[in-house]
Amino acid sequence: MSSRMAYEIREQPEALARTLDALLPLRGRVRALADGCDDVLLVARGSSDNAGVYGRYLLEIHSQHAASLAAPSLATHYRVERDLRRTLVVSLSQSGTTDEIVETQAWAAAHGARTVAIANDGASQLATEADLALVTAAGPELAVPATKSYTAQLAAVAVLADALGPSGRSLESELRRTPEQLARLLAAPDSVAAAVELLAAPAPTLVSGRGLVYGTALEIALKLEETCLQSVRGLSYADLRHGPIAVVDPDLVAILVSAADGPMLSGMITLAEDLTERGARILGIGGDATFAGACDLRLPGPDLPELVAPLGLILPAQLTVEALARRRGLDPDAPRGLSKVTQTDLDPSTRSSDGSNDD
Amino acid sequence: MSSRMAYEIREQPEALARTLDALLPLRGRVRALADGCDDVLLVARGSSDNAGVYGRYLLEIHSQHAASLAAPSLATHYRVERDLRRTLVVSLSQSGTTDEIVETQAWAAAHGARTVAIANDGASQLATEADLALVTAAGPELAVPATKSYTAQLAAVAVLADALGPSGRSLESELRRTPEQLARLLAAPDSVAAAVELLAAPAPTLVSGRGLVYGTALEIALKLEETCLQSVRGLSYADLRHGPIAVVDPDLVAILVSAADGPMLSGMITLAEDLTERGARILGIGGDATFAGACDLRLPGPDLPELVAPLGLILPAQLTVEALARRRGLDPDAPRGLSKVTQTDLDPSTRSSDGSNDD
Repeated sequence: MSSRMAYEIREQPEALARTLDALLPLRGRVRALADGCDDVLLVARGSSDNAGVYGRYLLEIHSQHAASLAAPSLATHYRVERDLRRTLVVSLSQSGTTDEIVETQAWAAAHGARTVAIANDGASQLATEADLALVTAAGPELAVPATKSYTAQLAAVAVLADALGPSGRSLESELRRTPEQLARLLAAPDSVAAAVELLAAPAPTLVSGRGLVYGTALEIALKLEETCLQSVRGLSYADLRHGPIAVVDPDLVAILVSAADGPMLSGMITLAEDLTERGARILGIGGDATFAGACDLRLPGPDLPELVAPLGLILPAQLTVEALARRRGLDPDAPRGLSKVTQTDLDPSTRSSDGSNDD
Repeated sequence: MSSRMAYEIREQPEALARTLDALLPLRGRVRALADGCDDVLLVARGSSDNAGVYGRYLLEIHSQHAASLAAPSLATHYRVERDLRRTLVVSLSQSGTTDEIVETQAWAAAHGARTVAIANDGASQLATEADLALVTAAGPELAVPATKSYTAQLAAVAVLADALGPSGRSLESELRRTPEQLARLLAAPDSVAAAVELLAAPAPTLVSGRGLVYGTALEIALKLEETCLQSVRGLSYADLRHGPIAVVDPDLVAILVSAADGPMLSGMITLAEDLTERGARILGIGGDATFAGACDLRLPGPDLPELVAPLGLILPAQLTVEALARRRGLDPDAPRGLSKVTQTDLDPSTRSSDGSNDD
């Protein structure tokens, strides 16, 4: 384990503990800011967007707030007029410097929204311009693939949802258990070598999950894709059933992610069985013993309830992705064609100087 | 052109004209029903979901309404409580019988929403249970891949957005021009044979578009996937820039879709240039002359403004997909592994009788 990415994966228990210590005391300020808001609009791209997908489900399920993901181009390109005076706009960017996220937050504020920024840099434009900044305490992240900054975002999102949730059902005790659960998963990475074997030969690969762990599936797909330079699709359970399942064949490797409890578990077990019948090989992450039995190989997940399981479920996948990249002779810290801060819209006049995009 | 799918593709000008005749007069009823609603929630799966993505952008951009896509599992599995008394819930299902869409509409109604169903069968449960049914007049569709029922849904969505839009800027005249534009594209399918050649050898394929035509990109990807049995990804311009662009290499074929005008055109031209630099081959659909010049091959789109361009942009892709399936020796009317009505959640007790799913 010599890569920077591996080191940052192992820092996650401390990153989570520090982030929870920093943000749980801010719940009162979140509640005050959101007072009178009817809905929450999440603004993000890339792995931050995958954290936003978790936030969307958690805000709906736990906090009973209407929540949706913004299409930033509505602000940046179509410049739509919207009355956002009863909307809490939550922008996520690890660096806090992605132009279109900064611009969309400014648009929201100009249309009356109250704004929360979730960023890993409190001095960034996104954080300083927000009404309230939830600054994650992941510490500097140098590998291009986001790991600890992503799990710290999940913690920030969970703190926000807890602040807006029913007072008698706080997530605090479950959240406080996440650092020890990540440490436990780091201590016993036995099956990771077997998972790397299963994924070693390039094969069509998809990742699926549903509901609260759908964002985890998307994040695993993105991480595999950008780090191992392999085209990988992240799909919801439902979108897989509505079409792409037609192309499942014996070449396919399906990575299925599930919490150990909750209303999605039984469907994920059935999906594992169906895909096995079609000849696909299944790598499971999380789930229960029945789920493990329906998979060719299963990486155990955290002992956490579904509402906060995503904070731990990503970890076995991160370990697998890092080891798979090295196995393929790739540098997990600096994937080809990506830089740490991705701008969606490149200014044509400066494009040629954006050298890190073509390395 | 012997397939049923080809026949149904050619029926689209008449299907659109009939649908507009049937639905434009209902705009007053839509307006009355939506009176006092702050936002619109769209409920759909599969190709209906792709029509919903168009609706989301059109409602935001033209109608200046907050619009978002529902996650049906929040209703069907998590059973969240929501106050929907100021929400217009629009459910789309070609058959009007997809269980989870019917169930989500019932959940919305039980939580106070006003409901509109967009379905091709006025006697279906979805249509009969809605406060208002916008019944598309596509006629019976027998090929499994949705074509005319999809474009008729786009027309219904546009009528709905027009009803909720500013009174001085109706889309009616643009919508009335769509049947003749589709007829024009059907009369000159010259480049389709060249497009089939470009796609003939199996290669990694992605489809991208942005904003109002993002849903078109998703629909092209789904159609290629389910009809030509090839794994194809539909990606927004922004999601492509944030990660998957790392895996672009000379094997890749990128299908880029653009309207001939609007704020997204210049970015799509730049994307075509960037992907070409990385060695990908580009099949363009729509756009202007500069866009055509940035593509290896371009299928001309309709002469329609961006707001309604998706009604025509899908047609060259449908022709290409149908011809590509036949070229590969596949039956475009009955793709392997799919049935006409897809249920997301299969009842385990009846799964073995769902024979069409395993053919």
